[in-house]
Amino acid sequence: MKITCIKVYKIRLPLKEGSYKWSHNNEIKEFDNTIVRIETDSEYFGYGEVCTLGSAYLPAYARGVRTGIKEIGKSLIGLDPTNIQEINDVMDKSLKGHPYVKSPIDMACWDLLGNVYKIPLWKLLGGKFGGMIDLYRAISQEEPSVMSEKVKQYKQEGYKKFQLKVGGNPTEDIQRIIQVRTILDSSDILVADANTGWLMHDALKVVRKLNTWTYIMNNHV
Amino acid sequence: MKITCIKVYKIRLPLKEGSYKWSHNNEIKEFDNTIVRIETDSEYFGYGEVCTLGSAYLPAYARGVRTGIKEIGKSLIGLDPTNIQEINDVMDKSLKGHPYVKSPIDMACWDLLGNVYKIPLWKLLGGKFGGMIDLYRAISQEEPSVMSEKVKQYKQEGYKKFQLKVGGNPTEDIQRIIQVRTILDSSDILVADANTGWLMHDALKVVRKLNTWTYIMNNHV
Amino acid sequence: MKITCIKVYKIRLPLKEGSYKWSHNNEIKEFDNTIVRIETDSEYFGYGEVCTLGSAYLPAYARGVRTGIKEIGKSLIGLDPTNIQEINDVMDKSLKGHPYVKSPIDMACWDLLGNVYKIPLWKLLGGKFGGMIDLYRAISQEEPSVMSEKVKQYKQEGYKKFQLKVGGNPTEDIQRIIQVRTILDSSDILVADANTGWLMHDALKVVRKLNTWTYIMNNHV
Amino acid sequence: MKITCIKVYKIRLPLKEGSYKWSHNNEIKEFDNTIVRIETDSEYFGYGEVCTLGSAYLPAYARGVRTGIKEIGKSLIGLDPTNIQEINDVMDKSLKGHPYVKSPIDMACWDLLGNVYKIPLWKLLGGKFGGMIDLYRAISQEEPSVMSEKVKQYKQEGYKKFQLKVGGNPTEDIQRIIQVRTILDSSDILVADANTGWLMHDALKVVRKLNTWTYIMNNHV
Amino acid sequence: MKITCIKVYKIRLPLKEGSYKWSHNNEIKEFDNTIVRIETDSEYFGYGEVCTLGSAYLPAYARGVRTGIKEIGKSLIGLDPTNIQEINDVMDKSLKGHPYVKSPIDMACWDLLGNVYKIPLWKLLGGKFGGMIDLYRAISQEEPSVMSEKVKQYKQEGYKKFQLKVGGNPTEDIQRIIQVRTILDSSDILVADANTGWLMHDALKVVRKLNTWTYIMNNHV
Amino acid sequence: MKITCIKVYKIRLPLKEGSYKWSHNNEIKEFDNTIVRIETDSEYFGYGEVCTLGSAYLPAYARGVRTGIKEIGKSLIGLDPTNIQEINDVMDKSLKGHPYVKSPIDMACWDLLGNVYKIPLWKLLGGKFGGMIDLYRAISQEEPSVMSEKVKQYKQEGYKKFQLKVGGNPTEDIQRIIQVRTILDSSDILVADANTGWLMHDALKVVRKLNTWTYIMNNHV
Amino acid sequence: MKITCIKVYKIRLPLKEGSYKWSHNNEIKEFDNTIVRIETDSEYFGYGEVCTLGSAYLPAYARGVRTGIKEIGKSLIGLDPTNIQEINDVMDKSLKGHPYVKSPIDMACWDLLGNVYKIPLWKLLGGKFGGMIDLYRAISQEEPSVMSEKVKQYKQEGYKKFQLKVGGNPTEDIQRIIQVRTILDSSDILVADANTGWLMHDALKVVRKLNTWTYIMNNHV
Amino acid sequence: MKITCIKVYKIRLPLKEGSYKWSHNNEIKEFDNTIVRIETDSEYFGYGEVCTLGSAYLPAYARGVRTGIKEIGKSLIGLDPTNIQEINDVMDKSLKGHPYVKSPIDMACWDLLGNVYKIPLWKLLGGKFGGMIDLYRAISQEEPSVMSEKVKQYKQEGYKKFQLKVGGNPTEDIQRIIQVRTILDSSDILVADANTGWLMHDALKVVRKLNTWTYIMNNHV
Repeated sequence: MKITCIKVYKIRLPLKEGSYKWSHNNEIKEFDNTIVRIETDSEYFGYGEVCTLGSAYLPAYARGVRTGIKEIGKSLIGLDPTNIQEINDVMDKSLKGHPYVKSPIDMACWDLLGNVYKIPLWKLLGGKFGGMIDLYRAISQEEPSVMSEKVKQYKQEGYKKFQLKVGGNPTEDIQRIIQVRTILDSSDILVADANTGWLMHDALKVVRKLNTWTYIMNNHV
Repeated sequence: MKITCIKVYKIRLPLKEGSYKWSHNNEIKEFDNTIVRIETDSEYFGYGEVCTLGSAYLPAYARGVRTGIKEIGKSLIGLDPTNIQEINDVMDKSLKGHPYVKSPIDMACWDLLGNVYKIPLWKLLGGKFGGMIDLYRAISQEEPSVMSEKVKQYKQEGYKKFQLKVGGNPTEDIQRIIQVRTILDSSDILVADANTGWLMHDALKVVRKLNTWTYIMNNHV
Repeated sequence: MKITCIKVYKIRLPLKEGSYKWSHNNEIKEFDNTIVRIETDSEYFGYGEVCTLGSAYLPAYARGVRTGIKEIGKSLIGLDPTNIQEINDVMDKSLKGHPYVKSPIDMACWDLLGNVYKIPLWKLLGGKFGGMIDLYRAISQEEPSVMSEKVKQYKQEGYKKFQLKVGGNPTEDIQRIIQVRTILDSSDILVADANTGWLMHDALKVVRKLNTWTYIMNNHV
Repeated sequence: MKITCIKVYKIRLPLKEGSYKWSHNNEIKEFDNTIVRIETDSEYFGYGEVCTLGSAYLPAYARGVRTGIKEIGKSLIGLDPTNIQEINDVMDKSLKGHPYVKSPIDMACWDLLGNVYKIPLWKLLGGKFGGMIDLYRAISQEEPSVMSEKVKQYKQEGYKKFQLKVGGNPTEDIQRIIQVRTILDSSDILVADANTGWLMHDALKVVRKLNTWTYIMNNHV
Repeated sequence: MKITCIKVYKIRLPLKEGSYKWSHNNEIKEFDNTIVRIETDSEYFGYGEVCTLGSAYLPAYARGVRTGIKEIGKSLIGLDPTNIQEINDVMDKSLKGHPYVKSPIDMACWDLLGNVYKIPLWKLLGGKFGGMIDLYRAISQEEPSVMSEKVKQYKQEGYKKFQLKVGGNPTEDIQRIIQVRTILDSSDILVADANTGWLMHDALKVVRKLNTWTYIMNNHV
Repeated sequence: MKITCIKVYKIRLPLKEGSYKWSHNNEIKEFDNTIVRIETDSEYFGYGEVCTLGSAYLPAYARGVRTGIKEIGKSLIGLDPTNIQEINDVMDKSLKGHPYVKSPIDMACWDLLGNVYKIPLWKLLGGKFGGMIDLYRAISQEEPSVMSEKVKQYKQEGYKKFQLKVGGNPTEDIQRIIQVRTILDSSDILVADANTGWLMHDALKVVRKLNTWTYIMNNHV
Repeated sequence: MKITCIKVYKIRLPLKEGSYKWSHNNEIKEFDNTIVRIETDSEYFGYGEVCTLGSAYLPAYARGVRTGIKEIGKSLIGLDPTNIQEINDVMDKSLKGHPYVKSPIDMACWDLLGNVYKIPLWKLLGGKFGGMIDLYRAISQEEPSVMSEKVKQYKQEGYKKFQLKVGGNPTEDIQRIIQVRTILDSSDILVADANTGWLMHDALKVVRKLNTWTYIMNNHV
Repeated sequence: MKITCIKVYKIRLPLKEGSYKWSHNNEIKEFDNTIVRIETDSEYFGYGEVCTLGSAYLPAYARGVRTGIKEIGKSLIGLDPTNIQEINDVMDKSLKGHPYVKSPIDMACWDLLGNVYKIPLWKLLGGKFGGMIDLYRAISQEEPSVMSEKVKQYKQEGYKKFQLKVGGNPTEDIQRIIQVRTILDSSDILVADANTGWLMHDALKVVRKLNTWTYIMNNHV
C-alpha cells in the first residue's frame, strides 16, 4: 500500500461560550483546526487532526501546520503508511523540529492502520482507561463572581472537577479561588492554573493567603 | 474473546556443538526451553516462548517459569487476551516480580493479537529493521587455538562479527583475543565478553597488553 | 559432616481472625508456610522456615520456594552444612537471584550449627535484645469503627503499639486514624502503614488533615 | 516613526560549485534565501535576511520563515521600529518559539536604526573585530582525492583554514583527513566537522587512527 | 574623533535630611561625588558620574576613583571614544580590577556616542521601562517612632513603596517593622533591608516573630 | 560464666632481619607486642593480641594499649565473655575511641567462645579461605641492589609476590622497582608501597618513568 | 634554649556541686586534671593543662594523657621550646594521632614563649575578646523542678545564659525546658543540649511540642 | 603605646636586567615600591612594604596604595599597633576591599611587635623553613636563544630551578621550552608559566608537542 495523496483542511471552530481567556491577557474566540486526510492506492484512508490554542500558547500555530505539511508532503508520497516508523523517519529527515507539523500525519497513519486491519487502536496504545477518569471543566478567566456562577451551572450538569484560569492579578485570583471553592462540595476537586502568569512572589502570596483561609475554614466549620 | 486454557510445554534443545562455556566455569549442554500456548473460546490461539541460559546466568530458570505460570494461570482464564495491558496488570497483581514468568504469556498474547487481526507484529513494534543488522557468532570459551579454529570456520560460512567468551584466566584471554584477531580481516568486528569473569585489575591487564600489541601491529604492518 | 537429605514441608496456617487485609484490596486467609529440614550423616539436623504474605506482597511465593529448592537441592548433598559460607556460595552458583528460596536453607544450617556445638545462636548473631523491644499489633484494614473496636480489645490484652493498615480511600483512612488515636493513651504509639496504597497527593491530604486535627487537640485539651 | 509595511522577498542562490554535501547524505544545490524590508512613515527603511541550510540542518526552513512573518506581521504595523525591545516583545506575544522567523525582522530594525541615526552598527554591537579573524573554507563532502584537490586550489587563493565535511563512512573519513592534511603547511589549520554523522564508537575509531598516524609523522619527519 | 582631555570634578552633595544611617553604625552626612567630562578634537563631549556610599559600603571610594583615573587616563588620550569596546579593553589593560574607576569613563563615552549621533541612549540599552516601575523611599535607621513618622510623611507625598534600614538590634528592628507596617495600607509594599547587620539567628528571630504577628493580624482583622 | 581476671603481657619480638624500614625514615628493630588473657569463673579462658608497628604508623601504640586496658578492665569484671556484643558496649561506654585498646579483648572473647563451645572460629567468621591466598613478602627499604638481592633469596624460598617499601627519594625508588622487576618472572607479582612518602608530583614522576620503561621492555623482548 | 625536663602532675578537682550529669546516664564527681611543666636550661619554664570530662565524653582520657607524654617525652628533650612548629612536628612523628596528649605540651611551650619574651599571649593569638562574651551556666541533668530551682539561684548570681543538660527521657526533657523557660526573663538565653541523647524522632517530638507551647504563650501573653 | 604617625615613601627600583616581560606583551622597567613606617609615642617603630608588578598583573597598583593609606590613615592614629586584630578591624571598617592597601600597614605592625618584645617574628608565624627551599630564577620572555643563554648563565651562578615566562606565540613557546630544557641537567627543575597567555587549545598544542619530544628523548638517550 502506498500514499497517493495528503489532503489538508482548515476547520474553524468558534467557541460555544464566545471566548476563552487566560493569563497574560490571552484570549481566543475560535479554534483554527487542521484536519489531514491520507489517501492510498487502496480503498483505505486515515484522518489526523491538530488544533493549536492560538499561536502564543505553545510553539505551534495553525498556519505553520499547513505550510509544514506542504514542505514534507512530497517526500511521503509513495511510502507505505502502515510502516509508521519509516513515515516518521522520512518526516524527520525532511524537516528538523516542528513536531506539531508531523503529529497529524502520524495520527492519520495510525488511523489508517486501524482501518486496514480492523483493529481498535486502543488495543495497540496501552489499553482502554477512559472510564476511570472524570473529565474536568476549564473555566475561562473572568471576574470572580462570573466564574463562580459558571461553576455553579457546570456543577448542575454533573461536573465534579474544575480548573480555574487564574494567572491574572494575584489579589483578584485569590477571590476567584475563594468564591469558587465556597460553592463546591468537599469532595469536588478544584485546580487553579496560572499558565505562567505569576512570578514566584505572586504565587507565594496566593498560596499563603489560601493556607490561612483554609485553616480558618477548617477550625470553624 | 476469552482465554480458556494455557498450555505449557518443555522442549529440550541440545547444543549442536555439544556444549557452550563461559566465565566462572559455567557450561550448558542443552537449553531447557518453555513454550506457552494460549487458547481461547474462538478459533484463535497464540504462542510464546522463554529460554533461559541455565539457572545461573540471569535470575530466571526453566523450572521457575513453569511453576510461576501455575501460580498465575488461573487468574487469567476468562480474560480477553487482546487487551494486553489488562493481562499484564492481572499478572503483576497475582505475582510480584519474576518477569521471566510473565514474558512468554505476554508474547503469546501479542502473537494471538496478530493472528486475530491478520496484522504483522513488526508494524506495531517499531518497524522492520532486521535487514540492517549483521548477526554475530558467539564463540564458546575454549583453548585459544580451538577458538581461533572455530572462528576460521564460521568466517567461511560468511560471518563477519564474532563475540569471544573470555573472562577466564586473563593471560589466556589475551592469547584468545590475539590469536583470533590475527586471522580476521580488518573490516571484521571482534568483541570480547568477559561476563563478569574479570575483576578491575584483570581487565586493565588485558586492555593494556592489547593496546601495546595493537600499536606494534599498526606501526609495522 | 555431610548433608544427606533436604526435606521440605508445606504447612497451612489459617489466620485466627479469619482474614488479613491491606492496601490495593489485598487479602489473605491463610499463610502457605514452608519448613525445611536438613539431615546429615550424623545424628544432627536443622530446621529453617520461610512464610510469604501471599504472592503479591514481595517478589517471593510459596510454590516458588519449593520449586527453587528442588532446583538447587542436589548441588548441596554431600557438603558440610556447618561451613555456611560454602553452602551459600554453592546456592548462588546453582541459581541466580531468588533469595527467598535460599533463606530457609541458610537458616536450617545455622540451626544445625547451634545444635552441633550446643551454642545458642544469639551469641553468634549480635546478642540478645528481644527484652528491650515491645511487640506491636498489626490491624487488618476494615471499617474505621471495626478497627477502633479491635484496638480497644488488644489494648486490654496489654498492647501499647499498633500498626493500622491504611492505604485505602484517603478520606476513610483519616477516619481510621482519628478514631483509633482517640481511644489511645498519649503514651501509646500508633503507626499507619499505607503499603504503597497512596499516591503522593493522597499522602499529603492525609498528613495535612491530621496536622490540623492534632493542633486542635493540643490546644483544647 | 511607525512601521507601515513589511515586504518579504525570496531569492534563489544557486551554489557556485554546484552542490554542497555533508553528513547523513544531506545535499543542497541552492539556498532558498529570504530578504525582509521594513518600511515606515518616514523616508527610512531597513533590510534583514535569513538563509537556512535546507530544512534539515536546523529546526528552521525558508517556507516557514515566510509563513511565520505572515502570522506576526500585522501586529507590528504601527509600532516604532527603533524601539527594538518592544518589537521583539510583540513578536514573542504573537508567536511562541520559531526564532528563525523573528530574526530577519529584528535585523531589519537594527539596520533601520543605524540608517536613521547615521551610526555604524558595529559601534553598538561590541566593536569591529573582523580584521582579527581569518576566514575558513568549508569543503563539501566528496571522495578524499576530490576534497584534497579542492583544498590545494583554495590554498592557492590564500586560504589557511579549512573545515572538512566528514561524518560519512569513518574509514573514508580517515582518508579524507589524512589526504588533506598531507598537502597542508604545518601552520595551516584543519578542522573536521562530522555534523552528528558519527556515533561515539565511529568518532573513537577516527581519533585513535589519526593519533597513531600523527605520532608516526612526528617521529619520522 | 579622538579623546583630547579627561576632566575630573569633585562635587560635595550634603544629605537633605542631614544624615543617612544603616547597619553596623554606618552613617554618612554627604556624598563625595565624582563627575568625569571627556573632551575630543571635535565639538562633542560626554559626561559620566560615580558616587560611592562612603568607603565602607562597597569596595569603592571617591579618592580611589580620582587616583585610578589618573593612572589610566593617559592611555586613553588619542583613542576614539565612540569605539567603546576598545576604550574598555585599554582600561582593563592599564589597570586590573577597580571597576568603579572605569565606570564613569565608560558612561561618559556612551553619553558622547548619544550626542554625536543624536540617538537617545535608551534605544541602545534595552528600551524605556521607567514608567512601569514605582520608586521606593529608603528610610534611614532611627528609633522606630521616628521612622514611622517619616513614612507617614512620605506616604502623603505619594510614595507607596518603602525600604526600612534595619540590621541593628533585632528586638528594635521588629518594632521598626511593626510600627511602620501598622500605618500602611495593605496595598503598600514594605521591604526591610538589614545590609548584612544580622547573623543567621538574628534573622530567624525577626522572621518568626513577624510571622506570628501577621497571623494574629490576619485572623482578628 | 563471668570474667574474673584480665591479664596483660608485654612480649618483645626482635626482627629476624635486624630492622624494618619504610618511608619518612621510619625504622623499627623490634615489635612491642601485647597479649591479653581473659580468665573466668570456669575452666575456660581466651587469648587476644595486638601488635602495633611502632607508634607512628597508625594512631595506636603499645604503651597506650596497656594503659587503656587498665582504664576499662574493671568495668568488664563479672560480665559474661561469651555475650560479645555486651562486652563491646561496655568497653565503648568506659572509653570513647581508642579501638586498638579494645581489639585484643574482643579477640580474647571470641577465642574463649570457641573454646567453650568447641567450635572452630572460622565457621563463625565467614569461612576458611586461607588456602586461596598466596602470602607476599614485604621488603624493607634499602639500597636498590640490597633489595634486589633479598628478593632473589625470597624467590628461592618460594615467594611469588613482593611488596617493596619505596616512598623515599623518587629517583632511587625508580631504581628499586626496575632492579627488582628485572629479576622476576613475568608471572610474579610486584607491588610498590610508598606509605604516604610521595607527594602527588613524586608519584607522577615514578609512574611516567616506569610506563616508558615498560613500553621499551615490551617492544624489545 | 633547650628543654631539660617535662614534669606531669595529676590534680583531682572534685565538683563543687557534688556531681555533674548528662545524657546516657553519664555522671562525674571529680575531674582528673593533668598539669604539664616544661623546664629548660635557662631560668624559664612554662605550664600547660588538659582536663577531660571523664573517659567517655570525647576520645581522650586522663590516664592516656600521662602515658602518651611518657611515650613522646624523650624525643623532646634538647629541643628549643620556643620553636613551636618543630616541637609539634616531633610530637607527630613520635606518636600518630592522640591530639589530647600533645595539647598540654603545646600549651606549655606557648606559655614559655610568652615568659621568655615578656609578651602577653593574646597579642599573638588574635586579640583580647573576652569582655564581649557573657558566660553561660551549664545545668546538670536532674528532675525538672531541681533544675528550675538551680537556674533561679544562678540567675540571682547574675547569669543570663543557661545550658540545660537534657538528652534523657524526651517527655521529661520537655518539662525541663518549660519549667526553666517559665522563670526566665524574655531577654535571658536558654539553650538545651541533648549531647547525642536523642534519636531523630525524640528530637522532633520535643521540638514540635515546644513550638505549640511557644505559640500559645505568644498569643495569650 | 599609640600610633602617632604613618609615613609613606615611594622607592623606584629599576630592573637590573633593564626590563622584565611576560604574556600579553606586558613589560616593566622598574618597580614602583612603597615603604610604610609606623611611628608611636614610644621609641619603637615598624616598617612594612608593598611592591606591585605594574598595575595590570593583579588588582593592585602603587598609586592606589598611597591613596588608600591616605583614606584610612587618620582612623589608625591613637590605636595600639601591637593589638594587630584591632588595627585590621579598623582598616576594614574604614575601607572595604583593597587588601593591597592594608597589607604594608599590617606588616609594619608585626615588625613593630617584634621590635617591642625582642622576639624574632618567625617564631610567631609558623617557624623557620627557608633553608629547605631552593630559590628559582624567573626568565623574562625573550627569543628562545636569548632565554636559553640567560639560563646557561644563571646555572653557572648556581641556580637549579627556572621559571620560563611563556604565554606568547605557542609555536615559539615550544622552542623556548625545548631550547632551555636541552641545556639543563636532568636533576634541574624547569617550570613554564604562561600567565593566562594561552587559551585552552594553545595549551593543549604545547603540551602534546612536548610529550612527543620527551618521549623521543627518553627512548634515544
